[in-house]
Amino acid sequence: MDLEANMFKVYEIKQRVFESNEREADKLRSELKQRKTFLLNLMSSPGAGKTTTLKRTIEALKDELAIGVMEADIDSDVDARAIAETGVRAIQLHTGGMCHLDADMTRQGLDEFGVDGLDLVFLENVGNLVCPAEFDTGSVKNAMILSVPEGDDKPLKYPLMFSICHVLLVNKIDVLPYFDFDMAALTERAKKLNPDIEIIPICARTGEGIDVWANWLRRQVADWKKD
Amino acid sequence: MDLEANMFKVYEIKQRVFESNEREADKLRSELKQRKTFLLNLMSSPGAGKTTTLKRTIEALKDELAIGVMEADIDSDVDARAIAETGVRAIQLHTGGMCHLDADMTRQGLDEFGVDGLDLVFLENVGNLVCPAEFDTGSVKNAMILSVPEGDDKPLKYPLMFSICHVLLVNKIDVLPYFDFDMAALTERAKKLNPDIEIIPICARTGEGIDVWANWLRRQVADWKKD
Repeated sequence: MDLEANMFKVYEIKQRVFESNEREADKLRSELKQRKTFLLNLMSSPGAGKTTTLKRTIEALKDELAIGVMEADIDSDVDARAIAETGVRAIQLHTGGMCHLDADMTRQGLDEFGVDGLDLVFLENVGNLVCPAEFDTGSVKNAMILSVPEGDDKPLKYPLMFSICHVLLVNKIDVLPYFDFDMAALTERAKKLNPDIEIIPICARTGEGIDVWANWLRRQVADWKKD
Repeated sequence: MDLEANMFKVYEIKQRVFESNEREADKLRSELKQRKTFLLNLMSSPGAGKTTTLKRTIEALKDELAIGVMEADIDSDVDARAIAETGVRAIQLHTGGMCHLDADMTRQGLDEFGVDGLDLVFLENVGNLVCPAEFDTGSVKNAMILSVPEGDDKPLKYPLMFSICHVLLVNKIDVLPYFDFDMAALTERAKKLNPDIEIIPICARTGEGIDVWANWLRRQVADWKKD
């Protein structure tokens, strides 16, 4: 059957021009370098486990690093409350309906927050695999979480997100037995888009794999503080 | 401990103005009414199961209704291929990086597709709980899928999406035993935002609940065809 000819067409909708915010992002990164503060931009779909992962990460690192968290959300403050309970400084950024953060919003948040003396600041971006990938926030590195129930095909659907991330946390590995999720296929798809991407399987709920992730962060923060 | 005062602030980032596309959407709906074509806008997070749900729905309804599917995606054509295998007409709309569809894009898709003689057209929106909620596509009704692994707190985080949907499909109920997911809590949160929302638990993989969902669609299509 010739599906292509009869029932299946691809139609290109022209892309709206996104305002570039590269220059603002680069400027922010230089300032963070001078202040020796490492900013990590953490992205994922809704419900992939960003906040739970952050809580586990803070537990692992808070005795050795001064940590702050900026929680971007459209409306609620449930995430910043959860983070504040860990004892680190947290700020909730309300995006007012915006689906992502750009470098200017990140700067507004950092200025309000005050990063002096912080070694590591996490920026929990809006839960979304599309728009946050388009806008450089000024972070030093980008991380994403993909949870097992979302499926191993996500690099095919959201290639830009996988291309711009330095590290991919594969969360909820405790439920691998209950889903058709092929870790080897995911790895191959992600590496094809981004050969340098680091892939770390974790379970934020039980803490499995958090030590590997914490070590990755320790190395990044130490490298960033070097002249 | 006074978290609010010491470590926890809420900072409002000013909302960018989204261009209104209400007029275009209303115009599209009038035209669909004249043509007696029911357009359903289906939204969810990445990996919640939109395409699998559509395949099951098509199986249930294709002998009685003329169905078409428009698959919006940033880049790939895997979804339209999957749909085309069911034997109904499918078109892939490439959004060129855009995170949502608006009424103008939907019209471009419908014009290219050609809806004459179709009773029911599904518009599978981009996988995203944020931006698609902001833009009226011109659809007759909005539906969303929330999958169990995403969590029962999503109405708190993405209130607009739950507010604008006429029906909420709760998918992947087969894995309820493995997740902390409280259906009563979800229902309460969703109904608080949107008292009229219809909530239908389904498992697209096994077909559970698809009959209830298909009945809802049958009623909608019949109502829309009345003068």
